[in-house]
Amino acid sequence: MDLSYSNAAIERALRNSAASSGFNRWSGMRLLAAGGGQVCLEIDVREDLTQHHGFVHGGIVGALADTACSWAAATLAGDVVTASYTIQFHAPATSALLRARANVIKQGRRNVSVEGQVYSVDSGGFERRVATALALIAVVPAPASTSAATRVASRTTHA
Amino acid sequence: MDLSYSNAAIERALRNSAASSGFNRWSGMRLLAAGGGQVCLEIDVREDLTQHHGFVHGGIVGALADTACSWAAATLAGDVVTASYTIQFHAPATSALLRARANVIKQGRRNVSVEGQVYSVDSGGFERRVATALALIAVVPAPASTSAATRVASRTTHA
Amino acid sequence: MDLSYSNAAIERALRNSAASSGFNRWSGMRLLAAGGGQVCLEIDVREDLTQHHGFVHGGIVGALADTACSWAAATLAGDVVTASYTIQFHAPATSALLRARANVIKQGRRNVSVEGQVYSVDSGGFERRVATALALIAVVPAPASTSAATRVASRTTHA
Amino acid sequence: MDLSYSNAAIERALRNSAASSGFNRWSGMRLLAAGGGQVCLEIDVREDLTQHHGFVHGGIVGALADTACSWAAATLAGDVVTASYTIQFHAPATSALLRARANVIKQGRRNVSVEGQVYSVDSGGFERRVATALALIAVVPAPASTSAATRVASRTTHA
Repeated sequence: MDLSYSNAAIERALRNSAASSGFNRWSGMRLLAAGGGQVCLEIDVREDLTQHHGFVHGGIVGALADTACSWAAATLAGDVVTASYTIQFHAPATSALLRARANVIKQGRRNVSVEGQVYSVDSGGFERRVATALALIAVVPAPASTSAATRVASRTTHA
Repeated sequence: MDLSYSNAAIERALRNSAASSGFNRWSGMRLLAAGGGQVCLEIDVREDLTQHHGFVHGGIVGALADTACSWAAATLAGDVVTASYTIQFHAPATSALLRARANVIKQGRRNVSVEGQVYSVDSGGFERRVATALALIAVVPAPASTSAATRVASRTTHA
Repeated sequence: MDLSYSNAAIERALRNSAASSGFNRWSGMRLLAAGGGQVCLEIDVREDLTQHHGFVHGGIVGALADTACSWAAATLAGDVVTASYTIQFHAPATSALLRARANVIKQGRRNVSVEGQVYSVDSGGFERRVATALALIAVVPAPASTSAATRVASRTTHA
Repeated sequence: MDLSYSNAAIERALRNSAASSGFNRWSGMRLLAAGGGQVCLEIDVREDLTQHHGFVHGGIVGALADTACSWAAATLAGDVVTASYTIQFHAPATSALLRARANVIKQGRRNVSVEGQVYSVDSGGFERRVATALALIAVVPAPASTSAATRVASRTTHA
């Protein structure tokens, strides 16, 4: 797993932001690495994340994909908000661990295009793709002089 | 609020199915009415459903829209699974109550097209649209002789 | 067919803009009415608009939906560009006339949310829905003092 | 450009199918290679493919992406029909040549998930991404004994 894009300052800002989100705390999403338009997240599957067949609920898979895409955009653009995303579900998420990856396709001034993938990871570390997302993340305007890292950090102070 | 499409047998089946889903129990989604390709759901906003600005987390808005769309399809097609959905976020969900509505556009043999809306409902009952979804719900094949109500019910027994 | 939203100044601007587009001239799309966030378009089906089964090509259905959505946004926001759209195809378009309608769901500062429908219209005037679209249309920034009608008109001068 | 997935039998079937489509003949889309869930297409930009700013019309970009995605699915699944696609536009397509690539993410029994990209190719051969698509392509059921190549071929005979 290549996480060489990892940027400690950006990861700290995103983890601070997540710590102030009730949903992120409850769901237990973990940021593995973030930086340069890329992100990797994981979540441990618990009983209260499942649907009626015992698999991970689609809403959780969607939330994981959405979070990965918006955080990937945030590593480049600072404060952002999801404008729209499309998600396809390929297979039920049956493992005890879910992993999401996202990477920026194109950074525009107003919107950032991001693609994301969610994987079911088995006990041997084998990944199976369970969902694919394509997201459009809107940039929240900020003073032109602010750097991306500072702007990500500013999400926490304003939260 | 017109809920005249309400079908008691289908609502019972959907509520039984939801009761066996850990995520549905945790999130507290309530089914107001379901029947004839339509559905209305509500959810009370709690601290652990929020993101870092204190609004409802996009993952919860998405899960609510996805659930409304797949349940609307289930009222006609029985056992179903979400193949894909697109969601647009129009405004932050800032109220203490969220409401989702969904209705079937077209029922095909393999896929059901559904559109859904999520509303922020203020204390005076005024609805503000916060998200719009367009979903493609795949029909899980079942014996041809089974009625929709029985098939929805069968989701519980197999859960 | 309610076309009471019709706004002559906006329609003139859109028709001028379309007249400067090679694809619009070739495809023969006709603007029936536009105004107040709504649009109605028609297209006559010809042999060179069809796919290998003899139905209207999905690309033409998509282009019609995209055009209807972006023009609906333009009636309110002036110069716009499509950021993203999702389209579902419900049935083959087999008639000699296609009609598209679009209406703005939500006008934001940067993006406008629009939903559109494409119908196959038979010789008796009966409409059958063949596709549904959900589009996000980006607003091209312009001087704050410019009105929507002027801004739509400005698309022609800059074309 | 790696086109090692090229399968002559499948390419012949797809070209025959395209030859019976009025829109494909008019638009001049060329199949460079197809096979094993992958496809590469090109189109020369002409005046009647443009919009009012002189760039390639979004409808043509969308049609190219849709065609690439459905043909990629057809290389594995035979006769198919587009159920839904989402497309994001990253930049205007300003060059004289457009290229599209698509590859299957996941082949299900009923639906095939495909991702596609459209590139503006300048005179030096440099590719710039102008659009990204995520498509869900529905499989048209056929006798179980038929191979993918035969099924793709059968599209022509039935056209």
